[in-house]
Amino acid sequence: MKEFFVLVNGELLPVSTASLLIGDLSVQRGYGIFDFFKTLGGRPVFLDAHLDRFFHSAARMRLEPGKSREELKEMIATLQHRNDLPDSGIRLTLTGGYSPDGFAPATPNLVITQQPLASIPVPELTKTIRLVSYPHRRQLPDVKTIDYLMAIWLQPHMLERGGEDILYHSDGSITECPRSNFFVVTAGDILVTPVRDVLRGITRGKVLELARGRFAVEERDIALDELRTAKEAFVTSTGRHILPVSQVDDVVIGGPGPASRWLSEALYRAYVE
Amino acid sequence: MKEFFVLVNGELLPVSTASLLIGDLSVQRGYGIFDFFKTLGGRPVFLDAHLDRFFHSAARMRLEPGKSREELKEMIATLQHRNDLPDSGIRLTLTGGYSPDGFAPATPNLVITQQPLASIPVPELTKTIRLVSYPHRRQLPDVKTIDYLMAIWLQPHMLERGGEDILYHSDGSITECPRSNFFVVTAGDILVTPVRDVLRGITRGKVLELARGRFAVEERDIALDELRTAKEAFVTSTGRHILPVSQVDDVVIGGPGPASRWLSEALYRAYVE
Repeated sequence: MKEFFVLVNGELLPVSTASLLIGDLSVQRGYGIFDFFKTLGGRPVFLDAHLDRFFHSAARMRLEPGKSREELKEMIATLQHRNDLPDSGIRLTLTGGYSPDGFAPATPNLVITQQPLASIPVPELTKTIRLVSYPHRRQLPDVKTIDYLMAIWLQPHMLERGGEDILYHSDGSITECPRSNFFVVTAGDILVTPVRDVLRGITRGKVLELARGRFAVEERDIALDELRTAKEAFVTSTGRHILPVSQVDDVVIGGPGPASRWLSEALYRAYVE
Repeated sequence: MKEFFVLVNGELLPVSTASLLIGDLSVQRGYGIFDFFKTLGGRPVFLDAHLDRFFHSAARMRLEPGKSREELKEMIATLQHRNDLPDSGIRLTLTGGYSPDGFAPATPNLVITQQPLASIPVPELTKTIRLVSYPHRRQLPDVKTIDYLMAIWLQPHMLERGGEDILYHSDGSITECPRSNFFVVTAGDILVTPVRDVLRGITRGKVLELARGRFAVEERDIALDELRTAKEAFVTSTGRHILPVSQVDDVVIGGPGPASRWLSEALYRAYVE
């Protein structure tokens, strides 16, 4: 199998040897942020939006990336050139660095990895997903931290209930999935997505942008009870694009509806253009 | 400066070269547990209690240490022999390992580090600490995870308010500090420590053990309001032993009182015996 290269603090290394010292604050204290985007035919998709969020996450966690937007773009291009993977996923991780006292953030370590894309986006909605709800609010929900402790820990809970992903809720309101945003189409044909205590997904933002003008759109809390009358529901993420929700716990929502289909096609066009 | 050795999956390495591949689930997803104990004059203090908790944390996070208690003790002895550091802090970290999909836990990586002890325990209470309260509940509070995201993120908030540590509370009840347990002596001379949503600290357990018979002891929720009438308050941890709390936010509690002093001396004897 071909081995891919990664960048660790600007140094190109085969992924099988790329490492961080054990004193890194991600290993010691789980402290770091990341972002993840796709390349299609060698072209990074929505790169500026992802870099905006990367800088936002870093600033909120008081981690200094030490690179400008243009420098990051050059590093990404270097990695793309070395790996020759036209369709890929690229992840930028910024950790708390080698902290002398094992607690206070130091100069961050910047790791950029690239891997083949598991699935090329298609406009058709061919799959659905079953969600299992769980009361939890992510720590610093507006920040794309590396903290997936609860998401990983909940996997057996989810599988026992026949779920394929978790849907967090907090104080009776739906927030998000661990790695996706959540949308419903209400009985009154309004496209709604939560806005409090959620990560501002790049795909979420694109879907909202595409939806405005075509649908009535609201960004607000969604009560768990609202699922019972929802016409459609879907999740969005860089990996999943738009993925219809068939069921949440015992509430059957059904397959994709017209709004999901229209948005999926519109998003696909935005991706490939 | 003398360089210390560490054990990475059983291999003795100088700390300056000891690393984990970037695919480790601590770097990717902040998923891991640890424990930390002291050695005094080469003797590990309360080692079995720490190993009990290490195995508990690992089991709760579904991480298989791959080593028995005796094997861990042998590894610790090997490290102690190599480093020749009679008074030290030893940390065992168990991470989610090299996950093929970057999400599901794999064979864990086990890292054991040793460093010189910053402070040798003394029976006298020579310092106090000011706490700043903050509403937060640790994720999986009974598990010693590597998740210190909020604790690190809150440092500037704490410093702006003149604090030296954070005191978490949840639904109006005090729980714990990020790395210490919390005790008060009430107006009615009862020693109280929270029992819900807290890490079962090894020092906490020892203090409770020593206190029983000598003081009225309760393990229960402590309302934030109760601080206003508290006679004494202190925090406990492996690093701090018993450290009196002088102030929480604007509530002045004052210096150490008779219960803190008695317990500090009793704990010191338990340490050195």
